[in-house]
Amino acid sequence: MKTLKMILITLCCVAVTGVVNAQKKSDKHPIKIGMAGYTFVKFDLDSTLKVLDKLDVRYLCVKDFHLPLNSTDAQMDAFKAKLKAKNIIPYGAGPIYMKSQQEVDRAFDYAKRLGVNLIVAVPNYELLPYVSDKCKEYDMKIAIHLHGPDLDVYPNATDVWEHVKDLDPRMGICMDIGHNLRTGDDPVKDIEKYQSRIFDLHLKDVTAASKEGHGIEVGRGIIDFPALVKELRKIKYDGVCSLEYEKDMNDPMLGIAESIGYFKGICAQ
Amino acid sequence: MKTLKMILITLCCVAVTGVVNAQKKSDKHPIKIGMAGYTFVKFDLDSTLKVLDKLDVRYLCVKDFHLPLNSTDAQMDAFKAKLKAKNIIPYGAGPIYMKSQQEVDRAFDYAKRLGVNLIVAVPNYELLPYVSDKCKEYDMKIAIHLHGPDLDVYPNATDVWEHVKDLDPRMGICMDIGHNLRTGDDPVKDIEKYQSRIFDLHLKDVTAASKEGHGIEVGRGIIDFPALVKELRKIKYDGVCSLEYEKDMNDPMLGIAESIGYFKGICAQ
Repeated sequence: MKTLKMILITLCCVAVTGVVNAQKKSDKHPIKIGMAGYTFVKFDLDSTLKVLDKLDVRYLCVKDFHLPLNSTDAQMDAFKAKLKAKNIIPYGAGPIYMKSQQEVDRAFDYAKRLGVNLIVAVPNYELLPYVSDKCKEYDMKIAIHLHGPDLDVYPNATDVWEHVKDLDPRMGICMDIGHNLRTGDDPVKDIEKYQSRIFDLHLKDVTAASKEGHGIEVGRGIIDFPALVKELRKIKYDGVCSLEYEKDMNDPMLGIAESIGYFKGICAQ
Repeated sequence: MKTLKMILITLCCVAVTGVVNAQKKSDKHPIKIGMAGYTFVKFDLDSTLKVLDKLDVRYLCVKDFHLPLNSTDAQMDAFKAKLKAKNIIPYGAGPIYMKSQQEVDRAFDYAKRLGVNLIVAVPNYELLPYVSDKCKEYDMKIAIHLHGPDLDVYPNATDVWEHVKDLDPRMGICMDIGHNLRTGDDPVKDIEKYQSRIFDLHLKDVTAASKEGHGIEVGRGIIDFPALVKELRKIKYDGVCSLEYEKDMNDPMLGIAESIGYFKGICAQ
């Protein structure tokens, strides 16, 4: 009798799980969620990795304050071992500013030793042909970080596109959806337009489509995330969507977690 | 020239905002997101309110460890002032166990003095007719908390329904979607079935549809949240969905924030 009851309970559970689990068997194009290292500018590597692990975020774009550009191979190995222990994948490095050929050389060498094939970069405009040659030489992708109306260089995706479209096809865009919108350009439309060169994406939300707009928890601002995810699936984006959270940088953990949760919720639909 | 530029920028921003803001003008039935006080069993009221405010969660179901059942009117007033200062609304009290008529009386008096019209309750079965009379007398709703396969009383929504369906219509269910599923019952189907008596909802996720299932960050378990929200909108649920997060209760903040964010993301679709 007890066995029969056990069998019935098991069958029942399997049936219910079948219903509730339907969403998990989605055949939608998967969206990779990651973290832009800059989000943790006020926190050391160990604290950062602990949070990523708790949030089940498995991709990190490495910033130099967690792994200096002049790290020795031994320091690189120790860094990689720490990430591996937490099951976190370094998928890129940057943003790295490049103001000279020496700085370009150092960045490519750093990325190669780190074992990534993507640099999120801000090279001076006049260095772009040199960077393009380096991409060919290293078989490395460059995602140029656009920075909205705040900086003189690379305000939006269109500006990056115009500067890289005739260079090596590994020269592309890190689509910062917040900064792009702050210049008045719709990030969703630009992802469609420049899809062949979108290699990285900075996930964030902003309060206004203007210079005055500032960072806020994902979902609380004006970006249309359902439309964003729909577009990313449409173009079969296979890069990472990395949260760059810039509000309350001394005490950002709740905002980071809420933002990651929100984006997971959007992706679950 | 400068003025013309400003006008153009403004027009451009308005146009873009028009596009990206489409999601915010939703005419979907709104879902109220709240917090079950129990989530903060290890934290005092001030810490709790600080977190709710940061997460923009505006509804709290008050637990007795934050406001004892024998609080004086002065203590009640101080409590209410603290919530008001953070723009947080106490919408209910409980869960409150009721093992005698005296405990029923005390709970109704407490809720009335707190100024809420909902008690999340676990009354002994034999007290139900007495509680029903009290609902009439106080014009107060009771949402009986179901507790899955762990307790002897009220395992699931069906059990609560069977016990209250012939009593005062203010006697209803606090749908704990996790515990209901852990008894093998689909919470979405039961919300449809018992919609006239669902007065509160405990939001959570679980790892399995069985006694062995345990709490986990919302979105990481087996509950189908898109289907849940669709159902809540279908029945025009006007109660609160309150997160009851029971994982890592000593260090739950990231999990709470991720869970709230995830549910907001689901509701945004």
